Amino acid sequence: MNTFETRYQAYRVLFEEKLRSFCDALRVKPDVLAESMRYSLLSGGKRLRPVLFFAALDLMGGVPEREGEFALALEMIHTYSLIHDDLPAMDNDDFRRGKPSCHRQFGEANAILAGDALLNTAFSLLFRAASRGEKQLLAARCLCDAAGAEGMIAGQSADLLMERKGDATAEDLDFIYEHKTAKLIAAPLVMAAILCGEPYLRWEEYGTLLGKLFQLTDDLLDVKATTKELGKTAGKDEREGKLTCVRLIGLSASEAQADLITKRCLSVLEGAKGDVSFFRDLTENVRRRER
Amino acid sequence: MNTFETRYQAYRVLFEEKLRSFCDALRVKPDVLAESMRYSLLSGGKRLRPVLFFAALDLMGGVPEREGEFALALEMIHTYSLIHDDLPAMDNDDFRRGKPSCHRQFGEANAILAGDALLNTAFSLLFRAASRGEKQLLAARCLCDAAGAEGMIAGQSADLLMERKGDATAEDLDFIYEHKTAKLIAAPLVMAAILCGEPYLRWEEYGTLLGKLFQLTDDLLDVKATTKELGKTAGKDEREGKLTCVRLIGLSASEAQADLITKRCLSVLEGAKGDVSFFRDLTENVRRRER
Repeated sequence: MNTFETRYQAYRVLFEEKLRSFCDALRVKPDVLAESMRYSLLSGGKRLRPVLFFAALDLMGGVPEREGEFALALEMIHTYSLIHDDLPAMDNDDFRRGKPSCHRQFGEANAILAGDALLNTAFSLLFRAASRGEKQLLAARCLCDAAGAEGMIAGQSADLLMERKGDATAEDLDFIYEHKTAKLIAAPLVMAAILCGEPYLRWEEYGTLLGKLFQLTDDLLDVKATTKELGKTAGKDEREGKLTCVRLIGLSASEAQADLITKRCLSVLEGAKGDVSFFRDLTENVRRRER
Repeated sequence: MNTFETRYQAYRVLFEEKLRSFCDALRVKPDVLAESMRYSLLSGGKRLRPVLFFAALDLMGGVPEREGEFALALEMIHTYSLIHDDLPAMDNDDFRRGKPSCHRQFGEANAILAGDALLNTAFSLLFRAASRGEKQLLAARCLCDAAGAEGMIAGQSADLLMERKGDATAEDLDFIYEHKTAKLIAAPLVMAAILCGEPYLRWEEYGTLLGKLFQLTDDLLDVKATTKELGKTAGKDEREGKLTCVRLIGLSASEAQADLITKRCLSVLEGAKGDVSFFRDLTENVRRRER
């Protein structure tokens, strides 16, 4: 493994340890509620948001080990959004991370509640962190806004609204990319900056671009990869009439667009303080990712 | 109207004003997300939790006008739980407060997101309140816990689990009553005590009993009242095999149980500081309620 991969795995392992202790200590009844929460939390995944958070803390002089609540809250909010998104009434996906999705495993009603419980538990962790000080409270509010009705949920709503709509524009697509995906990818970077008392505007800009790149490559993979490679159903966007970059401007123009966003990411990074090589490599990895 | 009714209506009007300004100021896109949130928030209801909160503040020397965020958060969490509870995969109810339920009006996917958005917005208000001071942060955490995976959501999960289960016990029923309903009815009282720097144990005890009484009379009404009277479908508990007091011990024993809990409520109130006549009247009103 090269330096980037070693560091990514180290952050990931740190996060998995924190997640595992959290899940072991989870005192929730009835069992099915605890099990459905654990099932979705522990089903793997890239852990991109916690990794971004830990890496940014490291860069800015923070201590990842001490800010575990934020990393857990980030992944819980991401996980709840996947559980609700996979429901039959939403994107109706039977697979997630190569395993049956939460509602396939526990039934729809339990999946709805597992999602609700993860969102609520994320806030419970954020309140605990917020009790430690002013900066923690600000960082918690930042995540709350990124996840909320003017953030990720707005993106999900727009994503549904634009299904099979003939007159969608590039602005509609940008709204979806920014809200559905980029808000929660920029959040860990902005939170790290807030916690370390560093300016956050450049990190917000980089995180937003990285999030859009992530969603764009997701849409490209939906066209190019197989279900096995993805661990979730491939080719669904077109079947469901999703508004994606590929639908709007075609595959090769979308690839060019991804290259362009990658360049903009790297150029924003150049002006940042410290050794940003991890983020440079991560950006290029997101561009080239195969799942 | 007698004194109790006048005061209840005054608190209710204060809350409706705060809710109306919140809804008017709501800057959420796409429109369907904002509309579905407003539709469910503004569809009436007793506003029991905000009223309890304002009345307790008044009794303990707080200022209801200044603590609007908590009242809004309480009602938003209650409303989100009703939206998700009414979904076809959960209790499958087409009516709520005499109007089509959220998913009947906006479709299932939008209803799931409206619920998520209300829960997230409640926390956004709680964080705003928590920025004002230590007591506010504690009160916010209290509500977060009452709503969460060891609170209301655990109750919803147990409620589903116990459907059509032959071997349910009085303990199972008590778990459901306490978690599904009583936690979020005790919360406003405990929050008011925390905000006013008053001891909260007696209020927690009273609120928990009142919440159980409220759920018990709800179950009784499901048997005794018509759909028109309730504004939601009557007779559903039995059809769906819900675990209720009536199923467990029969109608007349359940009425006696309600009388007993009422007495216990009143006896806990007796030891409280100040003029608790509003809460005494409210308890008796809950016992006698017809919807």
